[in-house]
Amino acid sequence: MENKDLKELYETARKWTLEAGERIKHSLTDTIEVEYKTSAADLVTQKDKEIEQFFIERILNEYPDHHILGEEGMSETTPADYQQGTVWIIDPIDGTTNFVHQKRNFAISVAIYRDGSPLIGCIYDPIEEELFHGCKDNGAFLNDEKLPVLTSCSVEEAVISFNHLWVVPNEKVDYEKMQQIVLDVRGVRSIGSAALEIAYVACGRLDAYLDFRLSAWDIAAGIVILNELAGISTTMEQEDVDVFNLSSTIFIRPGLDEKLTSYLL
Amino acid sequence: MENKDLKELYETARKWTLEAGERIKHSLTDTIEVEYKTSAADLVTQKDKEIEQFFIERILNEYPDHHILGEEGMSETTPADYQQGTVWIIDPIDGTTNFVHQKRNFAISVAIYRDGSPLIGCIYDPIEEELFHGCKDNGAFLNDEKLPVLTSCSVEEAVISFNHLWVVPNEKVDYEKMQQIVLDVRGVRSIGSAALEIAYVACGRLDAYLDFRLSAWDIAAGIVILNELAGISTTMEQEDVDVFNLSSTIFIRPGLDEKLTSYLL
Repeated sequence: MENKDLKELYETARKWTLEAGERIKHSLTDTIEVEYKTSAADLVTQKDKEIEQFFIERILNEYPDHHILGEEGMSETTPADYQQGTVWIIDPIDGTTNFVHQKRNFAISVAIYRDGSPLIGCIYDPIEEELFHGCKDNGAFLNDEKLPVLTSCSVEEAVISFNHLWVVPNEKVDYEKMQQIVLDVRGVRSIGSAALEIAYVACGRLDAYLDFRLSAWDIAAGIVILNELAGISTTMEQEDVDVFNLSSTIFIRPGLDEKLTSYLL
Repeated sequence: MENKDLKELYETARKWTLEAGERIKHSLTDTIEVEYKTSAADLVTQKDKEIEQFFIERILNEYPDHHILGEEGMSETTPADYQQGTVWIIDPIDGTTNFVHQKRNFAISVAIYRDGSPLIGCIYDPIEEELFHGCKDNGAFLNDEKLPVLTSCSVEEAVISFNHLWVVPNEKVDYEKMQQIVLDVRGVRSIGSAALEIAYVACGRLDAYLDFRLSAWDIAAGIVILNELAGISTTMEQEDVDVFNLSSTIFIRPGLDEKLTSYLL
């Protein structure tokens, strides 16, 4: 991809993400009509579907050869498409429970991957008006401010985040090992939006974010942004995260990754 | 206390709280010098002490017969003073770890109690510019907006918050009962500032906040605000919270309180 084309694609992704954010923000004064997907904890809103449709229309019109992978499954992309060509990976509203319940602490996550590799990432919190974004080999930014490269910290200094579910007996991770992490770090938080929590690792508000049941659209943009800051996206086994085939995922400062994953092995 | 005096005291408390908030906000561009109190997780900053001193000077000058109870223990109030006369209960920065680490998600908590009873409460988040405040029998507000009275919700609908420590074996609460709560509610969050988390219960962003190791200054203002909204401040045993003699504390929507405390007995 030529530099000019990449620059334009990056600008377009940011523009559409901001535009989608404005639409969501304005809708918050309206009544939110909610329907249930798989459980009471998994809220999907009309707005979620509407924003995905907003992206699908624009992408199909402007970039007809690009593929689309989204949470609402409204497009026709097959797994084979992810590894070749250009795919947009979209979560219209990451943190739908927060969206419905708090009207804050949610984000739009938009990533573009090329031939299976991270290229462009945008995570936008329309309430705080914070756009975290990055493009391969071009650094990462919070709005117009370039984010500094991440450095290490000790476990005792770390403020990290993960869902309380992982400290309860579960099938994904040894909850007793997670309990030990809770005791050893400086503090544990839980925000309820994976995309935002990865963005907060990128800008240093959190030192790590751990999750064990994520989907591609939750994290694809965050991986691009972290990559630009020497941040680590890894599995419990310290393997690279395969965004199209997820297991455990840890987003973390470089240097802290080995210390924290050693708890989980 | 006459109505005119009460109104003036309420206005003064809000004015000083906002003024303190501005001071803290401006200091965030400076380097924060941190010292350790009891552990790495318990950060105390110069700013914390400075803001407490800010209140002490003003209170002693304007209301020489009032007592002061603060986290930094810089005043001469004895426990006997709390039950008679007027006492200001101040947390200059609630959520010091967030203050140092995130430069957000902290609050100033200022309460005024008279003869041991809640009278005035102010919780100010200077980053979001959100002042939660209330005065006995006068309602509660977020900035200039009157907050609606709280109503019940089911456990399955509830988004609640508490520290991950309570899902780890500990001396304060049965962690297995807390694990069951994690499984049954819609979502669990952890923000890291008790004062803010109580304020979020008051404005409906959270449905409950639970803690088991708080001090008077963490919660005194929040209790005043919740009282005005039919919100419940209770112990595990469904007894009234004694702000000067704390054990377990649960801040919660009315109606949800019995459902959630029944998990803990």
